[in-house]
Amino acid sequence: MSYKYIPNGTVTSPRGFLAGATSAGIKTEEEGYLDLGLLYSERPCAAAGVFTTNLIKAAPVILCQERLKRRKAQAIVVNSGCANACTGSRGLADAEEMAILGARKLNLAPEEVMVASTGVIGRNLPLDKISRGLARIKISREGGHELARAIMTTDTLPKEVAVEFEVKGGKAILGGIAKGAGMIHPNLATLLCFLTTDAQVEPEFLQEALKQAVDISFNMITVDGDTSPNDSVLLLANGLAGNKKISADSPEGLEFQTALNEVCTYLAKNIVRDGEGATKLIEVTVEGALSSGEARIVARTIASSPLVKAAIHGSDPNWGRIVAAAGRSGAKIEEANLDLYLGQLCLVRGGCPLNFDYEKARKILSREEISLRLCLNLGSGKATAWGCDLSEEYVTINSAYTT
Amino acid sequence: MSYKYIPNGTVTSPRGFLAGATSAGIKTEEEGYLDLGLLYSERPCAAAGVFTTNLIKAAPVILCQERLKRRKAQAIVVNSGCANACTGSRGLADAEEMAILGARKLNLAPEEVMVASTGVIGRNLPLDKISRGLARIKISREGGHELARAIMTTDTLPKEVAVEFEVKGGKAILGGIAKGAGMIHPNLATLLCFLTTDAQVEPEFLQEALKQAVDISFNMITVDGDTSPNDSVLLLANGLAGNKKISADSPEGLEFQTALNEVCTYLAKNIVRDGEGATKLIEVTVEGALSSGEARIVARTIASSPLVKAAIHGSDPNWGRIVAAAGRSGAKIEEANLDLYLGQLCLVRGGCPLNFDYEKARKILSREEISLRLCLNLGSGKATAWGCDLSEEYVTINSAYTT
Repeated sequence: MSYKYIPNGTVTSPRGFLAGATSAGIKTEEEGYLDLGLLYSERPCAAAGVFTTNLIKAAPVILCQERLKRRKAQAIVVNSGCANACTGSRGLADAEEMAILGARKLNLAPEEVMVASTGVIGRNLPLDKISRGLARIKISREGGHELARAIMTTDTLPKEVAVEFEVKGGKAILGGIAKGAGMIHPNLATLLCFLTTDAQVEPEFLQEALKQAVDISFNMITVDGDTSPNDSVLLLANGLAGNKKISADSPEGLEFQTALNEVCTYLAKNIVRDGEGATKLIEVTVEGALSSGEARIVARTIASSPLVKAAIHGSDPNWGRIVAAAGRSGAKIEEANLDLYLGQLCLVRGGCPLNFDYEKARKILSREEISLRLCLNLGSGKATAWGCDLSEEYVTINSAYTT
Repeated sequence: MSYKYIPNGTVTSPRGFLAGATSAGIKTEEEGYLDLGLLYSERPCAAAGVFTTNLIKAAPVILCQERLKRRKAQAIVVNSGCANACTGSRGLADAEEMAILGARKLNLAPEEVMVASTGVIGRNLPLDKISRGLARIKISREGGHELARAIMTTDTLPKEVAVEFEVKGGKAILGGIAKGAGMIHPNLATLLCFLTTDAQVEPEFLQEALKQAVDISFNMITVDGDTSPNDSVLLLANGLAGNKKISADSPEGLEFQTALNEVCTYLAKNIVRDGEGATKLIEVTVEGALSSGEARIVARTIASSPLVKAAIHGSDPNWGRIVAAAGRSGAKIEEANLDLYLGQLCLVRGGCPLNFDYEKARKILSREEISLRLCLNLGSGKATAWGCDLSEEYVTINSAYTT
């Protein structure tokens, strides 16, 4: 693992990527809220994407899925404030028009332009505002920071990162930005993530590597299928690092995968940390499951249990809720085999509660990052999931969103 | 459907059933909190039970499942304040001892006595308190009301009901009490329900009928598998109505099933209405699914979506969340076929949002009972689920439960 974090890194840290954003009046008529942005590569890119599994797919998702069959792209136009989801055939036409407007601005063919939207469902895209907004956007090598802000909805902080990693004959950079699911498990609030690299990567491997990275990062902060119609992770590789093309078999394949996993995990954890109303990050590691698939199910069930999350919010060592969540996860568990750790403190051994130091447990639970480890002692499957606590503020935020 | 509600009906409304409760100091050392109770039939009963599907099963559940293989019982001992779950072999021995203490008090064989517990997980039963408490309990024909209070944990109101229905040559009574899951979908908070009837019912049919009634009632206020280690529904039939034994084939089979469905649905809806922090009852009906199983999945997914529930709490007609919940449910849906109604108001037709009267929608959502109807227009499967809104108070309650 020879990657290295780049200070103040973002999606425009890799060579040849430019971005910019503007306040187009989509989120609100008030000035000053960035809600429209562009990401552009000076060179055509190999492109990969992972999208929502929801049967209700937003128009921009349908368009990108179709266009990415070519495994090529050069730009992304994105707006917040309107999801362009549940908008029927007009929605699809609007998404295509949004790509055309972006292509015109950047002097590209429309099929080179990907689109993404996030915001309220069931409203049509305000194409006039998007058109006027695009005219105002100035893209630059520093624009990634602005773009990271433009995709936010209920996020309180932008999520940005970039790492440098070794390629034959030099270094390549991988950067990314993400929009908080806002929610703890992105039940509906949208996940958007745009990743860029100047490494040259073989397109099929790019897609495989992205899928693998998403599986251990963004998919571990969600409950399977609990996806919004707009969830999209896009990855562009423009090859400007000049390296020999990385493929599954090349020595740099593992380097690239490691860097990609790290960037995705970093962004995913920051999404959780910035969950609506969240005050704590909960890391749930499950070991000794019959398979890693089973470990994933158990870890996610615990990390997404409202009762576990509420207990942790109150720093309440109510471990029974953790064990019971495992019991209903659908994975094989044996009560008599369970060991449960809160940080280093063992709460349950062989399924039986230990007489643990209650005050110590409360103290561990008062921290901002909490790790739970549940050992099933049945096999060698292992997985980690991330969640956050459930606070009163979460409910307040979600009782009034469209209004 | 010739059943009739009995005013002030409860679990001791059917002939020959007596109950009582006391404050045994299990919930708290303070006096005045009922937390131990007895239900007794003057005659041996045919008995049926439906229990949690959680792999972590509380000791009383394991004991009852074993004893109910005989399809017979005459009494139930129940406590709140301690779940006797995750307590290993000692927990099982304690549950058996609790039954022995009850049997001694009532002059029965221990295997005639069922046990149930609800409360904090991972603590051992205080058998000394249970023993002293049982000695103080006086059972009576009016004791059902006391028993309904003794099983409450975070419930704010007892749930009791009884109906009268026709049997050959007279009338029989079916009564019941339930303990609120407290939560909206009984994710972990325990569901306890005790049902009694003086009808004479063939034991295998009794079990089948109970399973069917639970499927359309208690199982529709929960997400499948989202069960606590203690969930138990028990039904005792003592035959004192003197009717000819009701079986699946007898003419009264349907009458009995109808009455049982009604009692279970009444109790289930009242559990939801009294959900922790709940202010509104949400009824979700799904029609036109490929099968009733698929309709059940969609209805429950919508009724248990935190985003849908939070929006309804805020009277916010954010219908996109309802459609998106259906989309991630796992059941087959086609966006272009969806019609969505809020009460009588159509919000979406053929997958496209209508220009509905927003203020009217807000007004409907401000009521205490809200009905949503989603037509998938794919087949003839239909189901109804019940949920409640998600309020800040829910989080407050669940942040501090053991402490």
